[in-house]
Amino acid sequence: MKIQRLGLWLFMATFMVTMQLSAQNKHEGPYSDKEAWNYAQNTVQRMSLEQKVGQMTQISLEFFLKTKDGQVIVPHVLDTPKLKEAIEQYHVGSILNVGGDAQTVENWRGIITEIQNIAMSQSLKVPILYGIDAIHGNNYTLGSVMFPQQIAMAASFNPDLIKRAGEVSAYETRASFIPWNFSPVLDLGRMPVWPRIWETFGEDPYLVSVMGDSIISGYQGNNMADKYHVAACLKHFMGYSMPLSGHDRTPAWIPERELREYFLPQFKSAIDHGALTVMVNSGEINGVPVHANHHILTDILKGELRFKGFAVSDWQDIEYLWQRHHVAKDNKDAVKIAVNAGIDMSMVPVDYSFSKDLLDLAKSGEVSEGRINDAVTRILYVKYKLGLFDRPIGNASDYSLFGGKEHQQLNYDVASECVTLLKNKNNILPLKKGIKILVTGPAANTMRSLNGGWARVWQGTTSDETEKDKNTILEALQQRLGNQVLYAPGTEFDSSTKEGIQAAVDQANSADLILFCGGESSYTETPGNINDLTISSPQIQLVKALAKTGKPMVMVLTEGRPRIVSAIEPFMQGIIDALYPGNQGGNVIADILLGKINPSGKLPYTYPRFTNALANYYHKYTESKEFDINGGYDPQWEFGYGLSYTTFDYSDLQLSSTVVSDNRPLQISVTVKNTGDRKGKETVLVYASDLVASITPEVKRLRAFKKVELQPGGSQTLHFTLSKKDLSFINNDLKRVTEPGDFTLEVGGLKQSFVVQ
Amino acid sequence: MKIQRLGLWLFMATFMVTMQLSAQNKHEGPYSDKEAWNYAQNTVQRMSLEQKVGQMTQISLEFFLKTKDGQVIVPHVLDTPKLKEAIEQYHVGSILNVGGDAQTVENWRGIITEIQNIAMSQSLKVPILYGIDAIHGNNYTLGSVMFPQQIAMAASFNPDLIKRAGEVSAYETRASFIPWNFSPVLDLGRMPVWPRIWETFGEDPYLVSVMGDSIISGYQGNNMADKYHVAACLKHFMGYSMPLSGHDRTPAWIPERELREYFLPQFKSAIDHGALTVMVNSGEINGVPVHANHHILTDILKGELRFKGFAVSDWQDIEYLWQRHHVAKDNKDAVKIAVNAGIDMSMVPVDYSFSKDLLDLAKSGEVSEGRINDAVTRILYVKYKLGLFDRPIGNASDYSLFGGKEHQQLNYDVASECVTLLKNKNNILPLKKGIKILVTGPAANTMRSLNGGWARVWQGTTSDETEKDKNTILEALQQRLGNQVLYAPGTEFDSSTKEGIQAAVDQANSADLILFCGGESSYTETPGNINDLTISSPQIQLVKALAKTGKPMVMVLTEGRPRIVSAIEPFMQGIIDALYPGNQGGNVIADILLGKINPSGKLPYTYPRFTNALANYYHKYTESKEFDINGGYDPQWEFGYGLSYTTFDYSDLQLSSTVVSDNRPLQISVTVKNTGDRKGKETVLVYASDLVASITPEVKRLRAFKKVELQPGGSQTLHFTLSKKDLSFINNDLKRVTEPGDFTLEVGGLKQSFVVQ
Repeated sequence: MKIQRLGLWLFMATFMVTMQLSAQNKHEGPYSDKEAWNYAQNTVQRMSLEQKVGQMTQISLEFFLKTKDGQVIVPHVLDTPKLKEAIEQYHVGSILNVGGDAQTVENWRGIITEIQNIAMSQSLKVPILYGIDAIHGNNYTLGSVMFPQQIAMAASFNPDLIKRAGEVSAYETRASFIPWNFSPVLDLGRMPVWPRIWETFGEDPYLVSVMGDSIISGYQGNNMADKYHVAACLKHFMGYSMPLSGHDRTPAWIPERELREYFLPQFKSAIDHGALTVMVNSGEINGVPVHANHHILTDILKGELRFKGFAVSDWQDIEYLWQRHHVAKDNKDAVKIAVNAGIDMSMVPVDYSFSKDLLDLAKSGEVSEGRINDAVTRILYVKYKLGLFDRPIGNASDYSLFGGKEHQQLNYDVASECVTLLKNKNNILPLKKGIKILVTGPAANTMRSLNGGWARVWQGTTSDETEKDKNTILEALQQRLGNQVLYAPGTEFDSSTKEGIQAAVDQANSADLILFCGGESSYTETPGNINDLTISSPQIQLVKALAKTGKPMVMVLTEGRPRIVSAIEPFMQGIIDALYPGNQGGNVIADILLGKINPSGKLPYTYPRFTNALANYYHKYTESKEFDINGGYDPQWEFGYGLSYTTFDYSDLQLSSTVVSDNRPLQISVTVKNTGDRKGKETVLVYASDLVASITPEVKRLRAFKKVELQPGGSQTLHFTLSKKDLSFINNDLKRVTEPGDFTLEVGGLKQSFVVQ
Repeated sequence: MKIQRLGLWLFMATFMVTMQLSAQNKHEGPYSDKEAWNYAQNTVQRMSLEQKVGQMTQISLEFFLKTKDGQVIVPHVLDTPKLKEAIEQYHVGSILNVGGDAQTVENWRGIITEIQNIAMSQSLKVPILYGIDAIHGNNYTLGSVMFPQQIAMAASFNPDLIKRAGEVSAYETRASFIPWNFSPVLDLGRMPVWPRIWETFGEDPYLVSVMGDSIISGYQGNNMADKYHVAACLKHFMGYSMPLSGHDRTPAWIPERELREYFLPQFKSAIDHGALTVMVNSGEINGVPVHANHHILTDILKGELRFKGFAVSDWQDIEYLWQRHHVAKDNKDAVKIAVNAGIDMSMVPVDYSFSKDLLDLAKSGEVSEGRINDAVTRILYVKYKLGLFDRPIGNASDYSLFGGKEHQQLNYDVASECVTLLKNKNNILPLKKGIKILVTGPAANTMRSLNGGWARVWQGTTSDETEKDKNTILEALQQRLGNQVLYAPGTEFDSSTKEGIQAAVDQANSADLILFCGGESSYTETPGNINDLTISSPQIQLVKALAKTGKPMVMVLTEGRPRIVSAIEPFMQGIIDALYPGNQGGNVIADILLGKINPSGKLPYTYPRFTNALANYYHKYTESKEFDINGGYDPQWEFGYGLSYTTFDYSDLQLSSTVVSDNRPLQISVTVKNTGDRKGKETVLVYASDLVASITPEVKRLRAFKKVELQPGGSQTLHFTLSKKDLSFINNDLKRVTEPGDFTLEVGGLKQSFVVQ
């Protein structure tokens, strides 16, 4: 009897699914949120518990790749039986990652096609959601554009440009038939030791928020179900970026007020702008791993922020709840804690422990079916929004621009605005024509220091082979200047020889100018941890040796972190910080040095002067030199600092009224004039200071900015509007408030006062 | 009519006061808490608002000192009219500080006598409560014993000894007729950059708590109204010691869970042990200056902890609420916020702004009379407890031991246990007899590096003049070894010359061994801020130059902070860290070097290896090398580390049961044997590890310790008891809990497992 009924039910269910799928196949254009949610709910109702648990399971590609002698075969070949087992038996709903080395776009298409064919041949016909870290372009597909990393994008202060970079990233990701991008990082980059600060948009919550919204609008577009957009994944919800020690995935102490003041707003804004998924912070905050934090993942994310998408764990992080964090006694306990806290999908990554344990927990009721249905609905919602039910794979012919000239030109244009000129004594830059230049330093002739991590491979270690056709700084200069360029590496990043340094010194003696290229190589996550923020000692030795030649010296920094350079900065007449400018970095740096590009970047983070004096521009008054002569705020360069080859004058800062109220925002105008002799771009930064508040106010906060281009002698009057809410902060009751009282506004060194009623 | 009634009331009031005072004069022995509280309440009822506000006002001595050409006259002379104005007109209730330089005990007696004579000649006859920073002995009275600083006391792990030091400190403070000591610091010393870490009992909450209770029992005794004890003042309530930046009085981020786990227990314990006053943290926590924090000062301190004494502001800190923190718009606003938050007394320090503003606020009702009565009752309660109404001054003849041999001997005995042997390769120490020793380094011949700050003057800058009769390290060695000792300073702390270094190298060539004495000079508070924890560069240069001589080298560190020595540690065969050992430090260090004392100190804080890798021994598993190969926990030396000239073996770690429950504590026994050939003291540290908990457990926590002395070949079996509560932690609901589950216990490298039910 029971078996017969089950048979009938299965028949009906299959029939309904088939009907619905054929209906779906006719779906054209974007799915509205409601439509996608209804489809998802209906689909969930037809799923078995096993199928639901499978949807919540994400497995890494290498688990399905054929190997030889224990090594993954390259180019990748799928182990079809293993893949079938995953989809048919475990109903796996998502696959991620690259399995080692970046693949060609053709290989990716083959892989994704095979995966989706298996998935869509199942009776339920639920497509696999494939996710990838395409964090600066689709970096895991060979030949894709590799843009500047986020920290460099932030230095551009140009959200429109970054949106276009996001569009191209999405295009090139979809070209690999991948619809889900683990990007952007919305963590706040205020801890310079942290090895992922370069993956952020810098230290300012407002800047992060604006840049985040822009890149997400580039990724997701207006219709994620089209061929050219992908789902964004907001990383890493929440409070990941400020471990007390500075080392990755170590404990953070972030009181909830500070969490809401500095770390939450950019996520809220992104979710309000329709971001579809979030990835969870691997670390612990205040003693609780975020993967176990119901307050953050459910109360805040899904309650307060009304997030309708899903939360995926980070790599292996549910297992780590017992293996590393010790908050669970075994894997099953960890799965229970994580799913009940609000994790919807586990990045397992290479076994079925999660699926098996979750199935047991669901059967015993330790994880409720309601929780599971909620998670699966969210996952399917995203799959519907992405149009995957209709078009689980793409058409190769739709992506003729992949890696092509237009995209590379955009990359060059983006990188052009990401480089910051920090020092230019006696206008040493642009370089005079005809001079002989010694190019030296460990960053001079490597693509690793331009691209950083997440470049074809996780740690970015292969850039010199994979990006051979792109220019290093040295190559770009050689192309432009021929035999005016001398070269001696001088030192490696982490070790030097007397001979190496001497060779550089010898060459310096026959040059007119020394161009020292230093900073960092590529790294990310825990392998990028350091114990001393100072630039590596061999680089200091090299510079000191070179300085003795008396030749003028210019430094180009390519780096993720602001490595402390106070020991060598005085030797430099010119300093450029390119951060990680991406594959066009060599060309852009050369063109800046030679004056073809006028640099317009501004620092997206405070550049510290000392290892144990780390601070942010929005520090409190008690941290200022006025009250702390030996230890006060005294960075090498402040957030927002950046020079140009031309000069800008600010004048006529005017406020519409000196009183701001609920219905009366502040209208601001200021005139900027290019007073130099070449065209240039200037980012106008609008800072407000709350003079007295119930929470100690920061000395200033960035509340608006705009970038303008001005011809020599040209000027423009810019207009900004700040509402009362734009001046708000989180008070001690965790409420966002703007307290009445006196404020000052500062733009380009000009100041005005106003009152909030 | 009204005037007549007032006159009658005044007559009656005066009569009643007189009656009561004569009754009080008969009071013998200690005041019970209830008795003191009742007296205080009765007295408050007879006070005018002006008198009450005056009681809440504390003024610094220099305000009352005669000056010449703008300089305070030394020895100090009171400006009697000014003092009378303070007491008669402003009814000032408390005076503090030293007014620049330390005074002789005779001068102090004169000052206090004059102050109290004026106070007791007022109709109300309320004595002044005089307070002083007698933080390592009564350091502001010339000739007093100056003990090791708290951080060194903690290294002794000998609470009985520290209690005796507290008794002598109290004795010598009362000898100056001063009844109130701004000591101990109960802040947690876990942030090594912070310039006051040496004023703490180190990084472990349990060690701080035990040492705090001990020194308080020494200060306060069983009867604070007797001649030989003083009221303790717990500093700095709460969370002062861990500014994010490491710099003094800059913002801290301490979530309430961590506040309760690491910072609160030692204050709770001290208050349970009867500590009478607290001083408030000058900094802000989580955006709120603690001087404005009602939750901390009232809810927690006076509610939860049932504290009956009073809370005094730190120096000028109510003014700073508007001048520095910007949470108040002017002084009156600041006074209102602070008093309503729970501050009972303002360390103003040199004007009547507080009194005037508070009087206005009280009259307008912005500060309630109830709040003021509460504050004044608390202050008078302490004055009664101290017996000041009966004996506002002492008898000089009661203090014949002041600064005498017995006290100095105790100081030597205390310092003997405060010094930690960190390295002793090939038993380089004790030094072989008859060898020629080059003593060098900036700490070799200065009392400043032995005493640190708060030594006769705030920054400890005058120790070399005031403590001329005590031995520096060099002097102590010269006394003992005569012309076996060579000396060359080599360098200053912060600057060196080639000639200076060369002179040391030259002398080293004619010595058998180099004794490098380095570390830090004296400092405290904001002037002690540093931007780099590394030991100063001239010291590194000197050591590197000396190392080239090939002579064996031993390093003695005298320092407040664990200045990073990883660059020079490899050159040393022996290393001793004496922290700030006080006035007997030179003698003790010499006697340790020569083997007369067998060192028994253990590090009270983790000694870091790198500037940007600061961690504590009770870090989380995620911070361990196992999971963080490049950045994991890898200190130079761990908390609790310390060698001896003999060796100790641990055996036979036994538990009474492998199960702990509410009614069944854990009984632990372990046998320690002296396996070397000389007498020695060993501190046995009992660590417990909670293997799984709802809050990520630390890898281990110190839960008990005992120090034993063993003859060569001698052994002792030690017993410890840990209750279930001793294994508790603060959970995410801010409750103290011990969760059931597996634990391990570790003593001297031996491990046992047990289960909590």
